Amino acid sequence: MPATAVILAAGFGTRMKSAVPKTLHPIAGKPMLRHLLDSCAEVFDRIVVVVGPETAAVAEAAKPHVSVVQHERLGTAHAALQAEALFGDGDVAVLYADNPLITPATLHRLLERRRAGDVGLALLAMRLADPGFYGRVIGDDGFVERIVEFRDATASERAVGLCNAGVLCGDAGRMRGWLRAVRNGNAQGEFYLTDVVTLARAEDELVAAVEAPADELLGINSRVELARAEAVVQDRLRVAAMEAGVTMTAPETVFLSMDTRLAADVSVGPSVVFGPGVTVESGVEIRAFCHLEGCTVRSGAVIGPFARLRPGTVVGAAAHVGNFVELKAVNLGDGAKANHLSYLGDAAIGAGSNIGAGTITCNYDGFAKHRTEIGKGVFVGSDSVLVAPVSVGDGAFITAGSVITRDVPADAMAFGRARQEEKPGRAAQFRAARRKEPR
Amino acid sequence: MPATAVILAAGFGTRMKSAVPKTLHPIAGKPMLRHLLDSCAEVFDRIVVVVGPETAAVAEAAKPHVSVVQHERLGTAHAALQAEALFGDGDVAVLYADNPLITPATLHRLLERRRAGDVGLALLAMRLADPGFYGRVIGDDGFVERIVEFRDATASERAVGLCNAGVLCGDAGRMRGWLRAVRNGNAQGEFYLTDVVTLARAEDELVAAVEAPADELLGINSRVELARAEAVVQDRLRVAAMEAGVTMTAPETVFLSMDTRLAADVSVGPSVVFGPGVTVESGVEIRAFCHLEGCTVRSGAVIGPFARLRPGTVVGAAAHVGNFVELKAVNLGDGAKANHLSYLGDAAIGAGSNIGAGTITCNYDGFAKHRTEIGKGVFVGSDSVLVAPVSVGDGAFITAGSVITRDVPADAMAFGRARQEEKPGRAAQFRAARRKEPR
Amino acid sequence: MPATAVILAAGFGTRMKSAVPKTLHPIAGKPMLRHLLDSCAEVFDRIVVVVGPETAAVAEAAKPHVSVVQHERLGTAHAALQAEALFGDGDVAVLYADNPLITPATLHRLLERRRAGDVGLALLAMRLADPGFYGRVIGDDGFVERIVEFRDATASERAVGLCNAGVLCGDAGRMRGWLRAVRNGNAQGEFYLTDVVTLARAEDELVAAVEAPADELLGINSRVELARAEAVVQDRLRVAAMEAGVTMTAPETVFLSMDTRLAADVSVGPSVVFGPGVTVESGVEIRAFCHLEGCTVRSGAVIGPFARLRPGTVVGAAAHVGNFVELKAVNLGDGAKANHLSYLGDAAIGAGSNIGAGTITCNYDGFAKHRTEIGKGVFVGSDSVLVAPVSVGDGAFITAGSVITRDVPADAMAFGRARQEEKPGRAAQFRAARRKEPR
Repeated sequence: MPATAVILAAGFGTRMKSAVPKTLHPIAGKPMLRHLLDSCAEVFDRIVVVVGPETAAVAEAAKPHVSVVQHERLGTAHAALQAEALFGDGDVAVLYADNPLITPATLHRLLERRRAGDVGLALLAMRLADPGFYGRVIGDDGFVERIVEFRDATASERAVGLCNAGVLCGDAGRMRGWLRAVRNGNAQGEFYLTDVVTLARAEDELVAAVEAPADELLGINSRVELARAEAVVQDRLRVAAMEAGVTMTAPETVFLSMDTRLAADVSVGPSVVFGPGVTVESGVEIRAFCHLEGCTVRSGAVIGPFARLRPGTVVGAAAHVGNFVELKAVNLGDGAKANHLSYLGDAAIGAGSNIGAGTITCNYDGFAKHRTEIGKGVFVGSDSVLVAPVSVGDGAFITAGSVITRDVPADAMAFGRARQEEKPGRAAQFRAARRKEPR
Repeated sequence: MPATAVILAAGFGTRMKSAVPKTLHPIAGKPMLRHLLDSCAEVFDRIVVVVGPETAAVAEAAKPHVSVVQHERLGTAHAALQAEALFGDGDVAVLYADNPLITPATLHRLLERRRAGDVGLALLAMRLADPGFYGRVIGDDGFVERIVEFRDATASERAVGLCNAGVLCGDAGRMRGWLRAVRNGNAQGEFYLTDVVTLARAEDELVAAVEAPADELLGINSRVELARAEAVVQDRLRVAAMEAGVTMTAPETVFLSMDTRLAADVSVGPSVVFGPGVTVESGVEIRAFCHLEGCTVRSGAVIGPFARLRPGTVVGAAAHVGNFVELKAVNLGDGAKANHLSYLGDAAIGAGSNIGAGTITCNYDGFAKHRTEIGKGVFVGSDSVLVAPVSVGDGAFITAGSVITRDVPADAMAFGRARQEEKPGRAAQFRAARRKEPR
Repeated sequence: MPATAVILAAGFGTRMKSAVPKTLHPIAGKPMLRHLLDSCAEVFDRIVVVVGPETAAVAEAAKPHVSVVQHERLGTAHAALQAEALFGDGDVAVLYADNPLITPATLHRLLERRRAGDVGLALLAMRLADPGFYGRVIGDDGFVERIVEFRDATASERAVGLCNAGVLCGDAGRMRGWLRAVRNGNAQGEFYLTDVVTLARAEDELVAAVEAPADELLGINSRVELARAEAVVQDRLRVAAMEAGVTMTAPETVFLSMDTRLAADVSVGPSVVFGPGVTVESGVEIRAFCHLEGCTVRSGAVIGPFARLRPGTVVGAAAHVGNFVELKAVNLGDGAKANHLSYLGDAAIGAGSNIGAGTITCNYDGFAKHRTEIGKGVFVGSDSVLVAPVSVGDGAFITAGSVITRDVPADAMAFGRARQEEKPGRAAQFRAARRKEPR
């Protein structure tokens, strides 16, 4: 039986105080909406996103999923109804784009619950220590008698800890009927999705509550809540990495992306940031204060502290990247070392080469980027500049402080620096003169 | 009606184990005492600080507020009494310098409570889950019958969660009388401020309790408590920033100063430190591991990761400051870039200029600092040194690895580097020779 | 009376998903096993470690303590029995290597309890808010009637919050007898140490429970639990440092080693990592984002932000080490400064010398490390390279951008850079030509 997810993403998000639509704010590097789309895609056959009239960017971000526009903001039931032409057969679940942390497992349980026994409508509920102003789920044994809003609740109803998360799932045809039957005779004059529960119960439909962890059902309406959601996702990612065999000295200071891949026996020090697209093989040590994006680190390499790996970089097996070193689109060979204060960009560096402290590849001339090719077993002396395009042959030796503008043949020694001269006593004279100057 | 705050700052602070007086230890970059002074200044007409005989630095830090010296440490009531000549008319509140997180809103409520109805004395109280050894506030409906010290309390009194925070507010004349009436017939032989409550009740004065959040009333007696207070203040600052529209991936790793100003749609990555005097305009992205002090960052700029902005720096709109870059007293023009491993100090850099990796302004000669002036659209090649005072005209191009000691005219290309030479096979010979050497 | 600790370290540790034996994973830089060995060494006369047949590395790490091998893994009682030949006289305690955070104070209490009154066996217990599946300690007034496993417990027994930590201490002879009497008639067919309690009670021995803080009794079976243990140890270290007079702006972001020594009035900013072997004297300020290992920092020095001190480094009194600076095996003299973007390795730098931005000691030629000796009051200009072995005399001045390959006499001024030349208009021509190029 097919199943359709309708995601409501038309809200203004004014409490975010942002020029960016709320549902496009990122969590772990991925837009909020995308989190929910990706979870829904694992469980539902079709996804429809309901967007506001002025948020073309949201429809764009929802692609390849289809969007429909809610032209007037008349409430959640009205929003869901904009998608009714796309409900199809089977089941329809209504979700919220600002509730993006629901897991596929929970969505699956919701759908299965709806399809079990004679259940006509299934909803997600959460148990809160401090349920505050949430609507309470009144019922027994997993069945819902009714939802009572906080303001209408008696003291004993308010004492109920099970809260309505607002997410519903029902048969497409029935949902269509209930949604159309919702009325807006309330203070705000809005059509509320929650009224579907009342309508279903009025028809004696069984309504079932599926309890889910509260941290999956966090709503995001402000940057404070966005930060809380980020924390929930980061915690999930950290625990998953540690359970797969990664050591983290201080997991609370390590930040991962949804696609970060860390092998067993990778060790990660405090304060490490993984941007998107990072793969780290077994036995790698990533020390404190590193920043990695779009790169692959092969087994046994040592990274940091204070290293930055940028997109397009591959660090070879047992290679070392040390402090204050930036690698951008670099292929650093097995066992090669770049240990101190270097910028290497658009370069290939052969196995076993040693890049001295302060080495810089001059890859940009103000107009285009050029490549630097360094062979195997090359020794690049400290504070050298390699002006690209340039290549250095296997086994070559570049003396410290050289500016290399021409290719260096294999096994050659290259010099590109001035000779040293001294002026005896001149420093003492300089000091004496400077001290006499008026201040 | 005038109101005077008397701040007790005469304590030794021995548990801090510091050569610095306790109340001068900083929280969010501002001395503890200063936090309370600034809050009091919003509510009271006059502030008097009571300092110890050996802590001239505290009196100095209290300026322009007046200080009086408590020559002997005979207890809190005795300390407050040192200020009696300055009580004036109206109301007097007695506060503690090591209780610096009370907000103006709470101080205002305290003062208003004292002035409402027939209240003769108002005090601050807090409700604690684990009230420990605090004195308990015994009473009803916001009125205080008496304060009972923990050691004198019955089991049912100990079960009371409302605790005395020690802060009092009363009419100046009455306070003077009560303070003088306090006796020191206790084990320590000290004059305790809390006894004022007993004296007021003995005269049938109404004593009111104003309940305040416990984290405003944290006392700071040790570095552990100082760290806890810092955490409370940081949390306030982070929430305020997020509520104003700032995104923080990991607010718990971002450290702000009291005067940090971040506009809406500023995004702050993990592990960022804001020292005093930072203003960041809208749309700026501050990546992980940045350290900013005394600087302004204009809209749309991108900072970091691993960037340091020091006092006197202005980063122009849409400019980029990248990794391992330090800017000190630099005016970086709109759209200019300094992306890698650079030290720029005492410099102006024109709009759209590109500062290559490893560029250093040599602004110090061992005696004085000198300026570097770089025009618009300048290209400074990697690993260049600009020996100040020096200027580079608009559109000039400095080749990589140059040492620039003289002014460069507009649109000129400047070279300051040696020519490259190679010795074929010399690297291979060097390796062979070194391998033969005895170890 | 002598006392022997038997430490069970034969477990596989499969949930760690590691090629490294579980008990060798580090906490605060010290292998898990070593933590327990060091605590036991303060209380017990002899320590015996029971290792598995394939974990020679564990026996090696346990040295100089003796190890015995458990050839078959038949349960904890069987493991303890492998050491029986070394029980000696006096008392024997059985502990677990994956329970490494027990303090000497707790071990001492355990041993003393066993020796007080008529107690035949003492065990460690902990009180948990959520005791989960732990065995419950049933008894009264600190005496144990029996241990009941969770699966066998009644509802009222499950409500008991006192849990068995598994650690036992008894007379050597009696322990030998009980261990031999344990039978494996259970579902797993294993010999369980806990059965010793039943055997002792069957002989009417008094069994006493010694309650210890739950965080000392954390078992470590996974990387998540390893991270939790690290957090417990870090928190102990941070609190101890703060109580000794160290200021930490954000202790939760500071990571210490077991042997880190910080004097009073040291101030540590956010995000600082102390590897092993660091001593910091009074009045030092360590700013954010620093990484220190194996170094000594003398009084009044200022370190960071973004500084790295590596083993063998001594930073002199009131010296400054600034951002993006790495010191390795460097003796930096009193009042000397290395404030920006430098790599100094295998060097001595005299008092009051100033090391310019971008200075690099070229200490490695691909084969061996060489030393750089810099005198007192030397001025090293920015972006200089010192090609070791080399020495610079007192008061010398090295001009910016120099490559120094020969010794510089005292008070001399040294140059090692090319002269500057300009090509008027050439930059404009270059831009025009580049713009015409096909892309």
